Amino acid sequence: MPKTIRAAVMVAPRKPIEVRELPWPTLEPGAAMLKTLYSEVCGTDVHLHHGKLAGVPYPIVPGHVSIGHLAEIRGTVTDIEGKPFHEGDLVTFLDVHETCGRCYECLVTKQTTRCPSRRVYGISYGVNDGPLGGWADHIWMKPGVKLLRIPKSVDPISFIAGGCGLVTAVHAVERGDVRLGSSVAVLGAGPVGQAALALAALAGAHPVIAIGAPASRLEFAKRMGASHTIDLDVPPEDRAAQVRAITGGHGVDVVIEAAGDPRAVPQALDLVRDGGRVVIAGQYTNHGDVSINPHTQINKKHAEIRGCWGCDYSHVHRAVQILAQQGSALPWADSITAKFGIDQANEALAAVENRTVIKAVIVP
Amino acid sequence: MPKTIRAAVMVAPRKPIEVRELPWPTLEPGAAMLKTLYSEVCGTDVHLHHGKLAGVPYPIVPGHVSIGHLAEIRGTVTDIEGKPFHEGDLVTFLDVHETCGRCYECLVTKQTTRCPSRRVYGISYGVNDGPLGGWADHIWMKPGVKLLRIPKSVDPISFIAGGCGLVTAVHAVERGDVRLGSSVAVLGAGPVGQAALALAALAGAHPVIAIGAPASRLEFAKRMGASHTIDLDVPPEDRAAQVRAITGGHGVDVVIEAAGDPRAVPQALDLVRDGGRVVIAGQYTNHGDVSINPHTQINKKHAEIRGCWGCDYSHVHRAVQILAQQGSALPWADSITAKFGIDQANEALAAVENRTVIKAVIVP
Amino acid sequence: MPKTIRAAVMVAPRKPIEVRELPWPTLEPGAAMLKTLYSEVCGTDVHLHHGKLAGVPYPIVPGHVSIGHLAEIRGTVTDIEGKPFHEGDLVTFLDVHETCGRCYECLVTKQTTRCPSRRVYGISYGVNDGPLGGWADHIWMKPGVKLLRIPKSVDPISFIAGGCGLVTAVHAVERGDVRLGSSVAVLGAGPVGQAALALAALAGAHPVIAIGAPASRLEFAKRMGASHTIDLDVPPEDRAAQVRAITGGHGVDVVIEAAGDPRAVPQALDLVRDGGRVVIAGQYTNHGDVSINPHTQINKKHAEIRGCWGCDYSHVHRAVQILAQQGSALPWADSITAKFGIDQANEALAAVENRTVIKAVIVP
Amino acid sequence: MPKTIRAAVMVAPRKPIEVRELPWPTLEPGAAMLKTLYSEVCGTDVHLHHGKLAGVPYPIVPGHVSIGHLAEIRGTVTDIEGKPFHEGDLVTFLDVHETCGRCYECLVTKQTTRCPSRRVYGISYGVNDGPLGGWADHIWMKPGVKLLRIPKSVDPISFIAGGCGLVTAVHAVERGDVRLGSSVAVLGAGPVGQAALALAALAGAHPVIAIGAPASRLEFAKRMGASHTIDLDVPPEDRAAQVRAITGGHGVDVVIEAAGDPRAVPQALDLVRDGGRVVIAGQYTNHGDVSINPHTQINKKHAEIRGCWGCDYSHVHRAVQILAQQGSALPWADSITAKFGIDQANEALAAVENRTVIKAVIVP
Repeated sequence: MPKTIRAAVMVAPRKPIEVRELPWPTLEPGAAMLKTLYSEVCGTDVHLHHGKLAGVPYPIVPGHVSIGHLAEIRGTVTDIEGKPFHEGDLVTFLDVHETCGRCYECLVTKQTTRCPSRRVYGISYGVNDGPLGGWADHIWMKPGVKLLRIPKSVDPISFIAGGCGLVTAVHAVERGDVRLGSSVAVLGAGPVGQAALALAALAGAHPVIAIGAPASRLEFAKRMGASHTIDLDVPPEDRAAQVRAITGGHGVDVVIEAAGDPRAVPQALDLVRDGGRVVIAGQYTNHGDVSINPHTQINKKHAEIRGCWGCDYSHVHRAVQILAQQGSALPWADSITAKFGIDQANEALAAVENRTVIKAVIVP
Repeated sequence: MPKTIRAAVMVAPRKPIEVRELPWPTLEPGAAMLKTLYSEVCGTDVHLHHGKLAGVPYPIVPGHVSIGHLAEIRGTVTDIEGKPFHEGDLVTFLDVHETCGRCYECLVTKQTTRCPSRRVYGISYGVNDGPLGGWADHIWMKPGVKLLRIPKSVDPISFIAGGCGLVTAVHAVERGDVRLGSSVAVLGAGPVGQAALALAALAGAHPVIAIGAPASRLEFAKRMGASHTIDLDVPPEDRAAQVRAITGGHGVDVVIEAAGDPRAVPQALDLVRDGGRVVIAGQYTNHGDVSINPHTQINKKHAEIRGCWGCDYSHVHRAVQILAQQGSALPWADSITAKFGIDQANEALAAVENRTVIKAVIVP
Repeated sequence: MPKTIRAAVMVAPRKPIEVRELPWPTLEPGAAMLKTLYSEVCGTDVHLHHGKLAGVPYPIVPGHVSIGHLAEIRGTVTDIEGKPFHEGDLVTFLDVHETCGRCYECLVTKQTTRCPSRRVYGISYGVNDGPLGGWADHIWMKPGVKLLRIPKSVDPISFIAGGCGLVTAVHAVERGDVRLGSSVAVLGAGPVGQAALALAALAGAHPVIAIGAPASRLEFAKRMGASHTIDLDVPPEDRAAQVRAITGGHGVDVVIEAAGDPRAVPQALDLVRDGGRVVIAGQYTNHGDVSINPHTQINKKHAEIRGCWGCDYSHVHRAVQILAQQGSALPWADSITAKFGIDQANEALAAVENRTVIKAVIVP
Repeated sequence: MPKTIRAAVMVAPRKPIEVRELPWPTLEPGAAMLKTLYSEVCGTDVHLHHGKLAGVPYPIVPGHVSIGHLAEIRGTVTDIEGKPFHEGDLVTFLDVHETCGRCYECLVTKQTTRCPSRRVYGISYGVNDGPLGGWADHIWMKPGVKLLRIPKSVDPISFIAGGCGLVTAVHAVERGDVRLGSSVAVLGAGPVGQAALALAALAGAHPVIAIGAPASRLEFAKRMGASHTIDLDVPPEDRAAQVRAITGGHGVDVVIEAAGDPRAVPQALDLVRDGGRVVIAGQYTNHGDVSINPHTQINKKHAEIRGCWGCDYSHVHRAVQILAQQGSALPWADSITAKFGIDQANEALAAVENRTVIKAVIVP
């Protein structure tokens, strides 16, 4: 066993990532160490690097969704069926931890993703809290962290290619009530958008219209299940006209906004059919206000708009299940066009920021 | 039987209402004539007079919600139980007619309030179509118009005092899933707002917070069931602070927007608790755009926003039922502080526009 | 134009089907004549022949789901988008007609499948009402009957192979809230069961467990999308044990009962997971009572049981849509292993009753 | 502080209750002792005494719902808002403890009432586990037990009079989607039934039809909000006829079964309107099988049947809230016609079993 952990550390916003050695934590009963196979680089990491998220305890080890093998287990750690994990098991884990189970959000409104106590690996733990981020050769599974077994039928690189985009999309598609025969438009062709359109297609939705840029991402969207694509080069009104043309003049049953740009919100409201559902899943950081018309876009349209915040265990569970059952049919892994070592974390961030890749991964 | 019908006619936007004699229509089988007891003057009539609604075939006879006695029936006209109506019966009717039952909205998405064929008494029929508005001594019930019996336990003046505000509020409270123990804020203290807060209180919601103006309307709101009131004199942020204070810091489970001002929309989003529901019911005419923050007000809040358009038969049915069962406990009729004859329609409109009354009624 | 219609007539329960010539009806405006391409023979026709349905006005022309070309149109007949039909168009139609749009069920509880006025082609019209059943060379489309265009991408034989089983299954899967990742068991491997498991698979459910008999139907179930099959040879407790084994001990999220045998109901309650959903879709005729345990099978299980009665326009619409989008992937047409002429209707009934075919079709 | 706790102990099924002195537990941080003000005697206690529940670790201290003052707190114990409790506070607590938060039921299907780890005060703890039942002068609040503050506006005797019947009814009414204007029938006039009809009435349901016995309970039902009552003396078919007469021939929107007799299940299915909802809440112990007709009572009726198992924190929270807001209007306390000391527990059980009281309470 190594005595230290090698980690890429984001020391402060807009400062270069540094590689540091962190102390190996003392495991309490119920804790474990994960030997990182892959950890994801996602848009949130870019936002973290720009200092766009509030309350981040820099310096931190980024990397919230990761996959790896259990290197050490102290005492007994079990899955949701009570079956113990063993060293060597290939697992992932719910990056959200410390959901309290005792507050108004956990007990009364039953939306644990709004629990004020929750903390997120790779985002809201600092290096002083321990090696609690994925851009490191090992990750500390604190007691109570929820681990999930990766079945043999799931290729680890496909899982990490889905990553937190896939888990978020599971939640968004659930929130949008996407069903067999639903017509769906997905705004945004990044990782969340790609996963959302793939899940919509797997759920029997049709058409599945991907709206995004650049062309290469739309090409990938087609491989993932989009029946139609519209480039952002097309002016917004013409996009709406195209969506109406595809849907017999009505607009789609469900829009999943995964664009991350406030202007996607009024666009979504224009694309949805009367009485349809718009899921707002891409406004994870504050990019400012946007103007909407509450008469034409909400009231008269009898539309529903549903915010979609965070993920809970069930979404990761479902994501693993879907990959196990249906994943091999889709080119998830092809969204990863570049892999980076711990020493190349700055390059990884740049690649995601500049959209030269759909998805980057850290391979420690 | 009179040979003509005396009606107040809105000849064109911003022109004075005129009294005219209209020809008594020839009744086909299944048609009837209603002798008007009361017809409502509501905010929509003011909007009609300002030319704010599209596609209105002026000149028209205003008055969409009305109550009266059946003066003449041609053939058999039955209620939803198949029981025939008789001359002299006290009835109201669904002001929406010609919903087609054959289109995408009626048959596939099953939201008949979005049927493109629907027309509304007092709004989308012109005088050339016949006496199809309530500000007249008689109203033509065309074949297929859905009549409802007014039970003996319902005071006709209470019904018209509720009027289309009550029917709209039935829909809004249904759309907002207001239940026993829900905390509710209602934005707007006009007829829709007053009815919405009364229904929320009857549904066992608590607290029921009315936010509006002027003070006299808030006083009335208390009599209708509001547990708390907040005046619009209070700046928006302070209103939000008060709502948080009343709800243990969380915000309310449901906001019903019945204000008719676009600025009520971001306010509503600030007042709702995380994961709560905002019903947009007051943006019936286009008062322009408004700015919202999709990150803090929708996505992170995991909120739901639900447009609420129009009413169908079930809402009028429920409104009559609620008045019959529980209505006598509430001072519905006291919202009518002025009654007007057909000759006084201009004064009636002015009274509603200037908010010197909560509700005005035409008594032909 | 022929002056008569050649039809297979079920003169009375348990009497042989006779071929008769019926008079060509006089078309009112909005009516049409359909030249039958295919009409279905389904289990309900066997029940009709055994006199198991109440209120059937024998003699009747059986055949409720049919497909064909418009041979004659009087005036204008339009689809839900207002687009007129033309002679020669390939269409199907909603076999349910005369839903009143004016009753408690249509207007208040909004479940048109319970409208007491509704009548069904091939079941509740007698020969004296006109040629209103599908086992005939032409079918009279009365004014107001809802016609649907069959897109070019739908093979007519696939549509009729799906038939009313497919339409019923669309309703059942909707009622069961089957979604991406749901685990589903389908009881019964006849036409409804086959369609239900196919739709569940298209909706991304997994596993999809078909339970039925004989072995040949289970083989076909696998081709239609079942991931697992269990033969009725297996005793009920062992079936339950197998389902638990497949689902990690929990039971399935959704059971769709399409078996038509009352004993399938307690079996369904044993197969569903705690808090899961059981759709009862196969008890269309009264086969008697069955014993259940309300403590272990409902209350403690926190289960939901949902009756599923009839179909409305939206289900036929969705069925056509699904076939157009995804149907070519599945061997719908292979469920038809025998075609029969109008003269062979008795043989067709026998084939369905004796289960020598999954589905039979009349080709006039 | 006393060194021992005086408790009524159910030593084994059908043996007399004994009074014993139990050792005062050593409090860990986060634990507390409650000085019992009242503890409930409910039907489940009778079932416990008859040995009808599986897995009960006799000898036990019965009493699951209790109210009292905090006598001792070790460390900090907080409510759901994070506000600390102090000694002397009047509180109740969720009798369900040890819900794991880590299993399939807690995390995936999100129905914590089916968590296999959950244990219940007064039922599934033995005396060797400590003083974990309410029929004792003190109750041990183990760390993590969820305490709720009783507001000043709630009379403690009203709260215990509601007791677990009220909490169960909160869940049942939620599960039945009872709303303003719903028509409701409640089967059973014991504590769950009385609370269910009171909550339905507070939720604006009408009519609220109580069906039970004896006459004295039906009299009480009227005081609690029932608009109509039907005695069990009336034969089942005549009860159904009366319900149809009250509801215009349709049956009720919602039936809440709180009778505890399997024969109530087919009765419930006969009383509900087509497409209505039946909540099965009274089959908490196994009283055997019952026969139903799946064609007429489920499939053709398009009905929904919803099992309702156990309660979670939200239901107790809502129960306290409802009493605080609306409770004073109803004679909750009058259901308690007899109070018993710890030495009189046998008499208390007999009174509940023989229905000489609606509700009995232990006052240590």
